Amino acid sequence: MDNYPSILLGNAVDQFASLPGVGRKTALRLVLHLLRQPQDKVNTFAKALTDLKANVHYCRICHNISDQEVCSICSSHHRDRQTICVVENIQDVMSIENTGQYNGLYHVLGGIISPIDGVGPKDIEIDSLVERILPENIKEVILALPTTMEGDTTNFYIYRRLNAFIQADQPLRVSQIARGVAVGNDLEYTDEITLGRSIINRTEFRV
Amino acid sequence: MDNYPSILLGNAVDQFASLPGVGRKTALRLVLHLLRQPQDKVNTFAKALTDLKANVHYCRICHNISDQEVCSICSSHHRDRQTICVVENIQDVMSIENTGQYNGLYHVLGGIISPIDGVGPKDIEIDSLVERILPENIKEVILALPTTMEGDTTNFYIYRRLNAFIQADQPLRVSQIARGVAVGNDLEYTDEITLGRSIINRTEFRV
Repeated sequence: MDNYPSILLGNAVDQFASLPGVGRKTALRLVLHLLRQPQDKVNTFAKALTDLKANVHYCRICHNISDQEVCSICSSHHRDRQTICVVENIQDVMSIENTGQYNGLYHVLGGIISPIDGVGPKDIEIDSLVERILPENIKEVILALPTTMEGDTTNFYIYRRLNAFIQADQPLRVSQIARGVAVGNDLEYTDEITLGRSIINRTEFRV
Repeated sequence: MDNYPSILLGNAVDQFASLPGVGRKTALRLVLHLLRQPQDKVNTFAKALTDLKANVHYCRICHNISDQEVCSICSSHHRDRQTICVVENIQDVMSIENTGQYNGLYHVLGGIISPIDGVGPKDIEIDSLVERILPENIKEVILALPTTMEGDTTNFYIYRRLNAFIQADQPLRVSQIARGVAVGNDLEYTDEITLGRSIINRTEFRV
């Protein structure tokens, strides 16, 4: 489908097709949809993109996306400023915020250690995490990384980097999010590793 | 997922999520992808959209999309100017062009008659089709509309509108694209109506 009847149409399709998971047929469908919209709606769309790229900031403390230099979570006085939850990316912050179960701070690594993808510890925000840990201020680091090999590697690396704080007189607590059978799942359909770990890491039954 | 850490991010996600078939999670993924691109790439993306909407034309003869007032197909001297292929939309023109089997002109209706969607004959480009038929110039109209009830209704309506030309001394030929078993399909998995029609409309076997 590359015989576009208009160069402008072809350009717009090229742009959409450069997005991840968008093929040329989908791109064409999206562009033709936009073409049916009024001019000001299309301009608003385009402006939202340029504004975003030109004006968005990354919080200089936690590296979450933000409209200010320091994000609303890092600058909030209503949050537990002694706990840092370490996540891979911005979506993870949003997912955890949506649970309503966490009221501490975050640290967005911007990736996880993955030698196969050429991502090492220096490529992600681990140094800046270690710099944030002042024993008198931070009591706990929660590791909330993906439960994959890469996530485990990154967890282990961070744990090693935080070792001095863990061994200190006022020890830093390093925890990781619970792994186990997802709520609503049958044991029968849970994979063996998850089920095995859920037995090993069983918790006290409370009524 | 509506706790966006940045208003600019939320705006951009809103725009993408307004596209058909794009949910809010996908929209966020696309926006975060764009955010990782250099500023000039994002500006090019935005410019392609505004340029398209501001400068694209619809051919005043066939209503296909075009960079000029008359599209390259309608203005070409290398095409058979006695045949018009009637299609629902711009994608259909591109699909037929890609087959390389057709060298005539097109007429894009911009929709098909669908009472359930409130689309009547006056809402699509049927009048302009009839006006294009000058018996001395146009010898054949090929109906290449979807093989649905709405497509059949539109075919029938166009046939009726062209009746005077069909009954003329030099009759206009009105044909429709062949319906039958798709190439590569087993008869076993072809629906009964299609298979039945493919027997009724069988063609001469040629070696």
